[in-house]
Amino acid sequence: MPQYAITPLDPETAAAHLFHVRQVAPLVHCITNDVVQEITANVLLALGASPAMVIAPEEASHFAAIASAVSINVGTPRQDSLVSMHLAAKSARAHNIPWVLDPVAAGVLPWRDKQINGLLALKPTAIRANASEIRALAGVGAGGKGVDSTDSSESAVDAAVMLSQRTGAVVCVTGAVDYVTDGSKVLSVSGGSKKTTMVVGTGCSLSSMVAAYLAQTKHPLEAVASACALAKLAAQQAAGVASGPGSFKVAYIDALHLIQAKDFY
Amino acid sequence: MPQYAITPLDPETAAAHLFHVRQVAPLVHCITNDVVQEITANVLLALGASPAMVIAPEEASHFAAIASAVSINVGTPRQDSLVSMHLAAKSARAHNIPWVLDPVAAGVLPWRDKQINGLLALKPTAIRANASEIRALAGVGAGGKGVDSTDSSESAVDAAVMLSQRTGAVVCVTGAVDYVTDGSKVLSVSGGSKKTTMVVGTGCSLSSMVAAYLAQTKHPLEAVASACALAKLAAQQAAGVASGPGSFKVAYIDALHLIQAKDFY
Amino acid sequence: MPQYAITPLDPETAAAHLFHVRQVAPLVHCITNDVVQEITANVLLALGASPAMVIAPEEASHFAAIASAVSINVGTPRQDSLVSMHLAAKSARAHNIPWVLDPVAAGVLPWRDKQINGLLALKPTAIRANASEIRALAGVGAGGKGVDSTDSSESAVDAAVMLSQRTGAVVCVTGAVDYVTDGSKVLSVSGGSKKTTMVVGTGCSLSSMVAAYLAQTKHPLEAVASACALAKLAAQQAAGVASGPGSFKVAYIDALHLIQAKDFY
Repeated sequence: MPQYAITPLDPETAAAHLFHVRQVAPLVHCITNDVVQEITANVLLALGASPAMVIAPEEASHFAAIASAVSINVGTPRQDSLVSMHLAAKSARAHNIPWVLDPVAAGVLPWRDKQINGLLALKPTAIRANASEIRALAGVGAGGKGVDSTDSSESAVDAAVMLSQRTGAVVCVTGAVDYVTDGSKVLSVSGGSKKTTMVVGTGCSLSSMVAAYLAQTKHPLEAVASACALAKLAAQQAAGVASGPGSFKVAYIDALHLIQAKDFY
Repeated sequence: MPQYAITPLDPETAAAHLFHVRQVAPLVHCITNDVVQEITANVLLALGASPAMVIAPEEASHFAAIASAVSINVGTPRQDSLVSMHLAAKSARAHNIPWVLDPVAAGVLPWRDKQINGLLALKPTAIRANASEIRALAGVGAGGKGVDSTDSSESAVDAAVMLSQRTGAVVCVTGAVDYVTDGSKVLSVSGGSKKTTMVVGTGCSLSSMVAAYLAQTKHPLEAVASACALAKLAAQQAAGVASGPGSFKVAYIDALHLIQAKDFY
Repeated sequence: MPQYAITPLDPETAAAHLFHVRQVAPLVHCITNDVVQEITANVLLALGASPAMVIAPEEASHFAAIASAVSINVGTPRQDSLVSMHLAAKSARAHNIPWVLDPVAAGVLPWRDKQINGLLALKPTAIRANASEIRALAGVGAGGKGVDSTDSSESAVDAAVMLSQRTGAVVCVTGAVDYVTDGSKVLSVSGGSKKTTMVVGTGCSLSSMVAAYLAQTKHPLEAVASACALAKLAAQQAAGVASGPGSFKVAYIDALHLIQAKDFY
């Protein structure tokens, strides 16, 4: 069992990283699933980043090299998009550009797990997933129900630390509380709203925000946790004004744009 | 001409099926078109179901077997997704899992009609479509204008009954009034709002709600009509608060989540 | 350097073209990118047009021939969709149906530029793009940052006029002010809101509105500028009520539906 202490992310750090990502205004190269294309782009725009969904194998390597960060999500893999994911991840590595892996539904389907392992071998800078997915990647637990987690995020902290140690990636497991680890330290992020799980793409688009926060940072652990902190705060604000999941999504995107560094204090 | 009486769906049945689908919380495997991926997922989440868009041919058969229901929509068919649709439909049949066909734009394009007929041969549990599509599938009428119906739903009731008798599927034709038939009985569902036609995916996502309602039910005719009743009631509530199609969509998804069984009385 | 005078579009013309497009209720065949499918369909529905995303190579030619206009956007090109784009564009030309090209990210990636040039050779009726893209197509300027323009629209007016003269297309460069030219006259459209750039697909869906406005018109220059005028007015109204990009998008689609011809005066 790994040894570690869990420290809550402090508001100063969350504020500093939000300020930083807006200064950088990163160009985020996304190869993501069919369902969350629009919300991913809108979340990145609300944050202050520039999304670019460049998915052709003929362009993926070239574009990853000029992007600030790369975000790869295996929700709806195709033969051509899998090729693009590999090319983009390799290109990002070669050019010292951070790239994030979102291993949607890891542990549920054997063919998908094989694809995910192929991408893991390309050394993502960070992995963002739910508890069931992280446990499956770490080799513990039996996978979730489809794309939704059946485990609490607490139950995946050990798995996250082990996965981080094995892969070298910052590992982020999101849930009621988010946990982010570099294999030795673990940061926790509280807050948020249960309504987040009723809107498709809040998790997937967070992975792309994680990529944005990793652009030009020297503190990847804190950057990833700060992306989670923004999502949590935006969800909390949205839950306060929304009457259902439709209006929650609208308010969440508004909040991502309106939240300022000082709002973390 | 088929003989049948048309009976309005009673509120007790609509209420009981809504309660049931929320108890089951079905995992709905969707292979749907490019345009409606997000609204379909959000509609299912608002209802209380778990959407999973598993579209790779390598996974479709495996995943359909562990899903509670399968929803197939031919709006934007591709060579690979058509293979996945066939694999998922066959797997659903083999495992006694209900599957729903949404034959978008049937009767407009010859190649598409061939694909739709290939799927019809795999015996869907239910078919949900507009009047022009149902008439085209039944071999009467000349098809719609693109994806929109040019016929009233009333004009397709005979065709729906014939199609149900020929295929064994519960057939649902939606419009100003919805009609649902198992080839002998016909249920009607009134209410709703014309604004529904101004938001893309309200019909396609209803097909996926139909799939959700069919999970673990012994009363498929009533289950399908009850899915329509929820959509009609949510549309009616949304129309009361929306100023245009943008806010209608938001309010419709809110309403799908907020409506309780008692609201049908 | 081209010689031309810039004339603001007059409100009577914008009003007349809005009235006309709603009378025609055009069926718009869209082959667009993965990210903007839903907003494109909803924008066209809000306008009063019928969107149809027919993307299979087996159907593209057939469907373009029965559509009122065709809209092609190269945001996320695939081998099969590129084939469909060529077939649809050729079919549109052959049947005297207007077609619009949206050359997303022109000037950034060599492979994409080759695809765009292949489509340009099929003689679009209109081209709608941002300043960086228009400058790249005209052979001046160095391209944008990903999909976002790094140039002001003013800086691309010369390029737009040259591109129009070379291709015979009406060329529309959108930005803080929109400029539309047929190679001799230039119309300008002011108004709008900066918030437009924080919602993905506002530009891409405008290209599809341009296609709708071109259906059955004898005045393509004014039709294209009038589509821009509707977008500008809707954005201005939306900005007045929105608190962030989420609510801006909702209000923008509402406004597209609610604006009447008289509102331009």
